[in-house]
Amino acid sequence: MAKEKIVLAYSGGLDTSIILKWLKETYDAEIIAFTADVGQKEELDGLEEKALATGASKVYIDDLRDEFANDFIYPMFQSGALYEGQYLLGTSIARPLIAKRMVDIARAEGATMIAHGATGKGNDQVRFELGVAALAPDIKVIAPWRLEEFRNDFPGRAEMIAFAEKHDIPVTASAAKSYSMDRNLLHISYESGVLEDPWFDPSAPENKDMFLLSVSPEDAPDEAEYLELEFEQGNCVALNGKKFSPLQVMEKLNVLGGKHGIGRVDMVENRFVGMKSRGVYETPGGTILFTAHRKMESITMDREVMNLRDSLITRYATLVYNGFWFAPERLALQALVKESQNNVTGTVRVKLYKGNIIGAGVKSPVSLYNPDIATMEADPSQAYDQGDATGFINLNALRLKVASGVQQQNNK
Amino acid sequence: MAKEKIVLAYSGGLDTSIILKWLKETYDAEIIAFTADVGQKEELDGLEEKALATGASKVYIDDLRDEFANDFIYPMFQSGALYEGQYLLGTSIARPLIAKRMVDIARAEGATMIAHGATGKGNDQVRFELGVAALAPDIKVIAPWRLEEFRNDFPGRAEMIAFAEKHDIPVTASAAKSYSMDRNLLHISYESGVLEDPWFDPSAPENKDMFLLSVSPEDAPDEAEYLELEFEQGNCVALNGKKFSPLQVMEKLNVLGGKHGIGRVDMVENRFVGMKSRGVYETPGGTILFTAHRKMESITMDREVMNLRDSLITRYATLVYNGFWFAPERLALQALVKESQNNVTGTVRVKLYKGNIIGAGVKSPVSLYNPDIATMEADPSQAYDQGDATGFINLNALRLKVASGVQQQNNK
Amino acid sequence: MAKEKIVLAYSGGLDTSIILKWLKETYDAEIIAFTADVGQKEELDGLEEKALATGASKVYIDDLRDEFANDFIYPMFQSGALYEGQYLLGTSIARPLIAKRMVDIARAEGATMIAHGATGKGNDQVRFELGVAALAPDIKVIAPWRLEEFRNDFPGRAEMIAFAEKHDIPVTASAAKSYSMDRNLLHISYESGVLEDPWFDPSAPENKDMFLLSVSPEDAPDEAEYLELEFEQGNCVALNGKKFSPLQVMEKLNVLGGKHGIGRVDMVENRFVGMKSRGVYETPGGTILFTAHRKMESITMDREVMNLRDSLITRYATLVYNGFWFAPERLALQALVKESQNNVTGTVRVKLYKGNIIGAGVKSPVSLYNPDIATMEADPSQAYDQGDATGFINLNALRLKVASGVQQQNNK
Amino acid sequence: MAKEKIVLAYSGGLDTSIILKWLKETYDAEIIAFTADVGQKEELDGLEEKALATGASKVYIDDLRDEFANDFIYPMFQSGALYEGQYLLGTSIARPLIAKRMVDIARAEGATMIAHGATGKGNDQVRFELGVAALAPDIKVIAPWRLEEFRNDFPGRAEMIAFAEKHDIPVTASAAKSYSMDRNLLHISYESGVLEDPWFDPSAPENKDMFLLSVSPEDAPDEAEYLELEFEQGNCVALNGKKFSPLQVMEKLNVLGGKHGIGRVDMVENRFVGMKSRGVYETPGGTILFTAHRKMESITMDREVMNLRDSLITRYATLVYNGFWFAPERLALQALVKESQNNVTGTVRVKLYKGNIIGAGVKSPVSLYNPDIATMEADPSQAYDQGDATGFINLNALRLKVASGVQQQNNK
Repeated sequence: MAKEKIVLAYSGGLDTSIILKWLKETYDAEIIAFTADVGQKEELDGLEEKALATGASKVYIDDLRDEFANDFIYPMFQSGALYEGQYLLGTSIARPLIAKRMVDIARAEGATMIAHGATGKGNDQVRFELGVAALAPDIKVIAPWRLEEFRNDFPGRAEMIAFAEKHDIPVTASAAKSYSMDRNLLHISYESGVLEDPWFDPSAPENKDMFLLSVSPEDAPDEAEYLELEFEQGNCVALNGKKFSPLQVMEKLNVLGGKHGIGRVDMVENRFVGMKSRGVYETPGGTILFTAHRKMESITMDREVMNLRDSLITRYATLVYNGFWFAPERLALQALVKESQNNVTGTVRVKLYKGNIIGAGVKSPVSLYNPDIATMEADPSQAYDQGDATGFINLNALRLKVASGVQQQNNK
Repeated sequence: MAKEKIVLAYSGGLDTSIILKWLKETYDAEIIAFTADVGQKEELDGLEEKALATGASKVYIDDLRDEFANDFIYPMFQSGALYEGQYLLGTSIARPLIAKRMVDIARAEGATMIAHGATGKGNDQVRFELGVAALAPDIKVIAPWRLEEFRNDFPGRAEMIAFAEKHDIPVTASAAKSYSMDRNLLHISYESGVLEDPWFDPSAPENKDMFLLSVSPEDAPDEAEYLELEFEQGNCVALNGKKFSPLQVMEKLNVLGGKHGIGRVDMVENRFVGMKSRGVYETPGGTILFTAHRKMESITMDREVMNLRDSLITRYATLVYNGFWFAPERLALQALVKESQNNVTGTVRVKLYKGNIIGAGVKSPVSLYNPDIATMEADPSQAYDQGDATGFINLNALRLKVASGVQQQNNK
Repeated sequence: MAKEKIVLAYSGGLDTSIILKWLKETYDAEIIAFTADVGQKEELDGLEEKALATGASKVYIDDLRDEFANDFIYPMFQSGALYEGQYLLGTSIARPLIAKRMVDIARAEGATMIAHGATGKGNDQVRFELGVAALAPDIKVIAPWRLEEFRNDFPGRAEMIAFAEKHDIPVTASAAKSYSMDRNLLHISYESGVLEDPWFDPSAPENKDMFLLSVSPEDAPDEAEYLELEFEQGNCVALNGKKFSPLQVMEKLNVLGGKHGIGRVDMVENRFVGMKSRGVYETPGGTILFTAHRKMESITMDREVMNLRDSLITRYATLVYNGFWFAPERLALQALVKESQNNVTGTVRVKLYKGNIIGAGVKSPVSLYNPDIATMEADPSQAYDQGDATGFINLNALRLKVASGVQQQNNK
Repeated sequence: MAKEKIVLAYSGGLDTSIILKWLKETYDAEIIAFTADVGQKEELDGLEEKALATGASKVYIDDLRDEFANDFIYPMFQSGALYEGQYLLGTSIARPLIAKRMVDIARAEGATMIAHGATGKGNDQVRFELGVAALAPDIKVIAPWRLEEFRNDFPGRAEMIAFAEKHDIPVTASAAKSYSMDRNLLHISYESGVLEDPWFDPSAPENKDMFLLSVSPEDAPDEAEYLELEFEQGNCVALNGKKFSPLQVMEKLNVLGGKHGIGRVDMVENRFVGMKSRGVYETPGGTILFTAHRKMESITMDREVMNLRDSLITRYATLVYNGFWFAPERLALQALVKESQNNVTGTVRVKLYKGNIIGAGVKSPVSLYNPDIATMEADPSQAYDQGDATGFINLNALRLKVASGVQQQNNK
């Protein structure tokens, strides 16, 4: 009888290498190693050989960067999502894509299980598993770090290394970092270790080596740089007059933002699993995109559409953060967001300078900003009769006046 | 029979000087000139004499700066209010205070009317008048710029100057600015004139003279400066370990922010009266306060309280922007906001550098951030069992799984 | 030179007859009379002759009932809209349709103006005019009741009748009712007159003659009647197993609801123009549809989709009530609502009895209700492991526990 | 050394009797049995003896009815809470009170554990345990039905009865019902068993025996009954002119509602633990209170306060349903709700008739309804100038007009 198959999210690092072997033994199953290229820029060369050497029966290394930019990053940025007022959701938005691809591979390979190396304390386990639940409820997910037997087998790093040596698992010796990181096309996140002390200052010059995508504002060029972003229906389609795919846009913005010290965030955030945790993020390109998109909206989006969409940002961002990308409520919100972006078309000019993204002009063929109406000068369009404001104010004031006469004392 | 009395919001400028005289004549009334000191730092010396010379029967020049900081700015900042994702509501929040004081003076003087010099196109007329409506519905408001006869009398500046000369109204010759501005303790706003072109770049070096509160990031010191803000229940009560009143905090933060090029915003916003308009703002101290307050909340505020409060920011900010400060719905929201701030107590450390406010540490005696729980290391507190995450995920996934089996095809 | 044309919303009653003639004289224009059949069941025979006799140059009498049901009532009911917890928006939802048709006629006829007979105190003027503004901003709207000259010409009914007699305007002598009413396919509303006293009880037996669509619960049959409604994607498509168009569904439900004393509402509501007003409504069919739709959703709609949609009902209902049907924010909300209805498909059985709509069963091919999971008996599906609840509760409790240790005293 | 103590929520039924004994044996602990009287009207006589005979070391039988009405039911009704549009939260709102009292007893007795008999599939386990977590995070909760060893010991009713016989546990022979129920001052809920089939019709005459609090509408008196409810700041304080405590109000309304067939709900709802379940509820008094409260608000509550509060009902109701009564976000919402009720004072008259609660008048000393303003007749108060509506509409239309010219085609 054929062995069962398990698709494992594999990175080639110590943890998932150990897990690969451990799963193979524990479940007596074929392990299909899968690595998604979501722009992490890590060495993918040799990964296939390594996985096979560790015991994988098959290896998938898939470039998902275009799909990531097109179908995940861009729709999310249309929503203006920001988690807890600060976080651009760089890790959160990559997880459902990885889950989706794992499900596709499982279907193609006839696998009945999916495994990942995320810990039991983090958000990523939830994001992976809710994705699988929504797309393939029959597939079982194995999260070794949540299994007591696995944690018993590997109480510390020493046991992991011993296990690797015993099983001839090729382990790259890497200097232990004093924090962990996650990188993709949208950002790098840093957490744990020295960062767990919220009084620790990663922006201090002595800690600058941690950051990989951006220089600090202090180290950015003394010369500002201007940039024009062109939007069509809420999506950035060109930079400085040249058309680019979403992936290309993100890559170019990352370079520009990184060069000018843009997009670092240092925050304590609330995980879905219940605790607060400290995260430091570099999102150079995403921060430029986020800022420019809001500016594009400012002249093209109706006031009440913006009010409605803005009032739902907290909800949208929380859904993405918590891993509900494939949940029907995210799809319902996305339908609203998509409708809101119909006219978010035009050009934004920004100045990048030492951590700042300074607005330097905005224009649109469908601009709702009409200086002829707003002007304090005589109104050439005659669209606005100042006398109308009297009636407008009177009717807006009516309920306040009525209440004031009747209920005034109680309102104090 | 005694003449009726009108309380006029008087600045000493051309417009309100003309209005003072015009009202006196048109209504055959006593004019009580009122100037609020809300931190505009304009010359208040000589204002009394000028008003009397122009025809005022009485003059009030009231220092409202402490009340402004204590009862308006601070409660608003507890809410995290930001209008359309960018504007810290510097003008909006001063108007209800001025309306309140005008009502108090009207009551004290037995005046039956209140007048102001705001135009019929802007938000300020609404803010003044909704304030009066809520506090004194029987008092009539006169807005000359909305009266056809007034606009007919003064179609342009020339007619105003002629009128001033004819009536010996002392007019300070001021070089006509190519924009208008409004200043108070919280900010300076700039609009109109050259700013009406949204492609005009006020951040360009040649336009730097416009800004009064801050240098541009390019002109800020090359040395960063660290600052510690201490919060009690959502209010900043000390800077660098020294206690200050809200007014003092705002003044000191303005100096610091201005020095480091912090708090400029350039945006197109949606006015309550229906059109988009372009505004440029300097809010140096407010921007520091806003940023630090969010950081203080990050370790002291419950996740769901933050989620709830954040989901209401759009609504709160819109209420303040539209002039509904004294409306019962703002009071209801404020009750929620106040409750949310019970534990927002502690210290935030930030680094100010060329337009950036960089988090450099946060601590609190009532911090909810517990690194012992969040840590990837062994959990000394035992408060978190990783195995719990399995049940947590399974139950969160349940509805997605059930739906996937039944409704999957429809969701595509 | 050709005369200008005005499209007038014409009912044949005294007011719009007077207005027809008055407009024609005052503006020296051609008047195109337009009457929409939205199910008001009033005598439309003879209306054309009457309008022509009164001076109309052309008459449109258009049956819009199908469009009303298909494109207005049905999409609105998908949203679950209820204004201020009680009102099913019967009048509100008809106005944008009438506005739309008036614009179409104006375009076809080359008319530059649209006129209506709604008063300056009500909501309908707003709904008509916002509709025209959104669809044809260049068309001018004339609302005679808001014009001082018109009000001066007609300070009371006597002057209107005199004017009618003088101009040979055919006026149907009707016994003056002690209230006004508006009828369409969805409801009849009653307001004004005796109803202005909120202590007046229209449900008292002596007032039963007012109601036209329904008997009172007391007068309804002693026998209950069962009814099955079949839904497809949120729309009722069949009754008792027989397919019907939306118009037919509404008509049949009106008969059934009316027979069983269903759908009366008596409320004080808040008008957009600022005051409270008392309205009494009969919505027999709409009330059945509303109730059955909610029941259909209960087994087919995801929990969080329902939560999201429900949290937006107040906003959606307020938009419709205030006349923003064609505004972009309503379109954005509708996109979300539409997405939410993808699976609202199945059959609802209700019992109609003396004002009650009693649920008597619900089923669906895409039901998310799975008794095998919910049952307290052994779970044949094995989809639910009771032990999972422990982890679920523990992680949901975590933030409460952490806070309790640190902030407990402050929360009292 | 003293034994540890466990406080057990004890009902005297088979389940908690078994659990009492099982806990005592398994944990070698003293069991303190606790029964809360929240109005369940079950036989509390003999409960103490029974608990002692079963092995309890101490027994608390506490009348919490006044606290339940004062501090739980009344504040919740101020919010207008309705879960999923239908459920008045009768069970949900009792659980936190019971949790609170259990914590108080545990503190008084020095107990370190709390146990309950709720199953692992329901909401009540969550409500109990989140309550304990918020109030006493150090206390451990034991939920035997979620423990595998307990479920193994008692796979079915037979094993439970055998265990009871073996240990001389007094078990009242009760005819097995084909559903389960929960009763308190606010409602009775029915679920499970025959009710699990959503096509089963509990309203059918043959099933009428299930209902204990109300007759069916068909069996209600043919004579309507009028009732006046007097409110002060959102709380009902008198009936028919006679003052009553909250507990008395609830009891009297239950009798009245039950007599007239009021307050039955049959729904499929979404549990917090992830599945849909079918519940049938009788809430006779609560339904009257809910309806009358909304009517009281209709003339006393500001439009925008109502809009704000209504937009938060879904959130509030979900919090209560999910067991977050003692969570800080519920407290924050309650602060808003409380502020919203300041003026909800006056008298509501309703007619009760065969399942209907028909409004029959409403009045208030602080009514915001002013017929002089709303009237279509000449306005004696002069508070409303119809001409004002023109300006009001024009400014509300402005953004629609501007967009229509620029973005019209895109909006289709």
